[in-house]
Amino acid sequence: MYGVILAGGSGTRFWPVSREQNPKQLQEIVGPGTMVQNTVQRLLPLIPTEKLYLATNHQQAIETLHQLDCYGFFSDHLIAEPSSRNTALAIGLMAKLLIDKDPDAVMGVFPADHVVTNSEAFIKALQKAEALAKRDYLVTLGVPPTRPETGFGYIKQGAEIEGCASQVERFVEKPDLATAKQYLEQGNYFWNCGVFIWKASTILEELQQYAGNIYSQLETLTGCLENSKGKPGYLELNEKGRNLFSSLPSLSIDYAVMENSSRVVLIPAEFGWNDVGTWSALDDVSEKDSEGNVISGNVLAQDCENSIIQGQNRLIAVLGLKDTVVVDSPDALLVCAKERSQDIKKLVEALNEHAHPEGKQPSTVKKPWGSYTVLDSGSSYLLKRIEVLPGEALSLQSHQHRSEHWTVVTGSAQVVRDEETFQLKVNDSITIPQNTKHRLENSGSDPLVIIEIQFGHPLDENDIIRFEDRYGRH
Amino acid sequence: MYGVILAGGSGTRFWPVSREQNPKQLQEIVGPGTMVQNTVQRLLPLIPTEKLYLATNHQQAIETLHQLDCYGFFSDHLIAEPSSRNTALAIGLMAKLLIDKDPDAVMGVFPADHVVTNSEAFIKALQKAEALAKRDYLVTLGVPPTRPETGFGYIKQGAEIEGCASQVERFVEKPDLATAKQYLEQGNYFWNCGVFIWKASTILEELQQYAGNIYSQLETLTGCLENSKGKPGYLELNEKGRNLFSSLPSLSIDYAVMENSSRVVLIPAEFGWNDVGTWSALDDVSEKDSEGNVISGNVLAQDCENSIIQGQNRLIAVLGLKDTVVVDSPDALLVCAKERSQDIKKLVEALNEHAHPEGKQPSTVKKPWGSYTVLDSGSSYLLKRIEVLPGEALSLQSHQHRSEHWTVVTGSAQVVRDEETFQLKVNDSITIPQNTKHRLENSGSDPLVIIEIQFGHPLDENDIIRFEDRYGRH
Repeated sequence: MYGVILAGGSGTRFWPVSREQNPKQLQEIVGPGTMVQNTVQRLLPLIPTEKLYLATNHQQAIETLHQLDCYGFFSDHLIAEPSSRNTALAIGLMAKLLIDKDPDAVMGVFPADHVVTNSEAFIKALQKAEALAKRDYLVTLGVPPTRPETGFGYIKQGAEIEGCASQVERFVEKPDLATAKQYLEQGNYFWNCGVFIWKASTILEELQQYAGNIYSQLETLTGCLENSKGKPGYLELNEKGRNLFSSLPSLSIDYAVMENSSRVVLIPAEFGWNDVGTWSALDDVSEKDSEGNVISGNVLAQDCENSIIQGQNRLIAVLGLKDTVVVDSPDALLVCAKERSQDIKKLVEALNEHAHPEGKQPSTVKKPWGSYTVLDSGSSYLLKRIEVLPGEALSLQSHQHRSEHWTVVTGSAQVVRDEETFQLKVNDSITIPQNTKHRLENSGSDPLVIIEIQFGHPLDENDIIRFEDRYGRH
Repeated sequence: MYGVILAGGSGTRFWPVSREQNPKQLQEIVGPGTMVQNTVQRLLPLIPTEKLYLATNHQQAIETLHQLDCYGFFSDHLIAEPSSRNTALAIGLMAKLLIDKDPDAVMGVFPADHVVTNSEAFIKALQKAEALAKRDYLVTLGVPPTRPETGFGYIKQGAEIEGCASQVERFVEKPDLATAKQYLEQGNYFWNCGVFIWKASTILEELQQYAGNIYSQLETLTGCLENSKGKPGYLELNEKGRNLFSSLPSLSIDYAVMENSSRVVLIPAEFGWNDVGTWSALDDVSEKDSEGNVISGNVLAQDCENSIIQGQNRLIAVLGLKDTVVVDSPDALLVCAKERSQDIKKLVEALNEHAHPEGKQPSTVKKPWGSYTVLDSGSSYLLKRIEVLPGEALSLQSHQHRSEHWTVVTGSAQVVRDEETFQLKVNDSITIPQNTKHRLENSGSDPLVIIEIQFGHPLDENDIIRFEDRYGRH
């Protein structure tokens, strides 16, 4: 069995921890481990690394690979999508890729940002599903509802088949509250959790039948996949493929296939599934104290009840709160009534409308070579902490409007400045004048941390001329 | 008329904005202006700068003078008390100081951390009080209660005298709620707001009669006052004076004199007085939006009611809050049910018990020469922004366990390192090795800002050997 992880989600619901540029699946929401790491970890007992694939958007490709490096994830098993086109196209492309390698491939499709509390039961359900998939069924795992949730699609269970599954009468879109209450009472409706198991050949047949406009382009698209320039070499589409991809319809697999196909069967998913859709979902998946609070980070809480307090290093003192969500991050803070958690998406939209950069950009900005964090700024200076991963290097670059002063505080650096090369260790400094070609590289085996002070005006991320780049960015 | 401002308060109730080392009167709680600045500003129409005096504790003397510099406050009109001995001793000492200069001196006593919304009415009340004080009354301003407050002492009004005042039947300590409700209904009880007007000679006579142990030492104490070493030269006690001061009883003027004297008269204080005792008091003294919220700083609020959101530069997004207090600071955050505001004092005690430095020390630490702020730290480095006021200088010093790397980001610096002297401008850097004598001075007329990176172990404020100091600290 192959595993296909869909990791293209954006990051508004878990703001301020997740951001558009740093989405939920890459965050430690239900720690330890980020959500995509935990998704891989959960599959490994059944699916070895060499059979794991992942689709994400272009922006997150390298950070996703960095996070999965510890599992030996194959960088060319990651497809970086040029734009967001929902699940039908991503699944079709993966199915085509797999069938070209293995005509009998059975593939499981897994969202990257869900939680499963009973991993053993999850694996057992997948094994059952694999057996059914081999008999040309489209298997979906349906979660028995525990509340009249209006945020999910539902699957109506039909007659039992094969002893361990049911036919599916129909897929239904997100219902209103009255309908959701009926579904809960009736007992034969299940939440659609987005986990599917089928043969690559089966889903391709169904795509051909019900979504011919997508199916007909899959051969061309896979022909356009190539290794990305620079390292690590993940899969991306060439220009022709990118244009084609972005011209195709944005459809969910549910809408494109599942609602139409007669091959769909349901296995009840009784393994503690949670989509962790809002901060309030931590109530269901995290450990609580005796007053019902979910607390992490540097927190002192007095007389609080049923609250979610997610801190980091900075001290948070909370007093007398009830049903409140407090989430801190270095550059932005959220305080929210718990019952309003689902409206954080709108709050982030408002931040973006009001041009607050914190709505989209995290304080620590991930780069292919590591990350940077703005620590301070004044009218004509900007102070950053720059972390470079072992063996990585920033591009060979220059700046028109600023000079830079670097001091190594951890690790060792090799710095190219014009024609010269310098080896710097902790406590060493160097100044890079304006309009001077330079490159910073971590020449050691430990992380390199430098403190950068920029001088000039404007001090802008766009003031960069790249002459050479290992990650194909120039 | 002379004005004596009592500014010795500590800072737990307005945590995290106020801290033990940065108390309420020095903060911009009801801005613009800090509370002590606003207290001076309010008095100036009646009392010129040269007749204003202030008592505070030793730790806050220089910062208080810095804040009052814009009013031309005389540095030798500030008495820095060596320890906290309540109001009777501070008032006695000030009265003795004033009578030695002006035997007929009338003095008004004013807490430094209260708010008055109607400054004109305040000045008129003081003028009435001054007239009565000249006739040897001890005049107290009593605030008509608006709620059954249990946090204040009360004054019971007696028969009318002189057309505009009343005799005082008695002073009463903080009552319980039932009693406070009775007082409110009866209409002849007033809050004791700690504002007093009297002749220096009158209060000294009363101290002699009712607090002889304090009175008898005042002459000795004023003889021990001398200008502080270094500049600015405020008044402090020499060693003999410090020992004597600290050996005297800690009594409030209410307990020592007002509850006993028959000369006390009351003027109703109808000028919008508020002691701003807790964050929830901002409801009474600050501007609210249409939903009853008091909001300042970088805040996006959606659907919040009757809440107090005090931000700074960092973004705060709040959603669906009711009756909640959110106060952010660079290194600590408070979120609190509004009805629990008065318990913040206990919260800070808990922080101190759990050895959270944020309970006492602010993130920006004030120094006689300016301030420093820790921006970042790692296992063997510490990053600070250091601001030096024009003309000021750190001590000539050395460190046993660390080297320092300085970069000027604003202004210009003169740096002494061993036998050499360097002039540094923006973008210049210098390294100070371990065990090397050095001094940093702001040689310009603008503020100097440097970024300091410390290397070594341990990186500790106590690792400092001072050879010379302008502020008498070595």
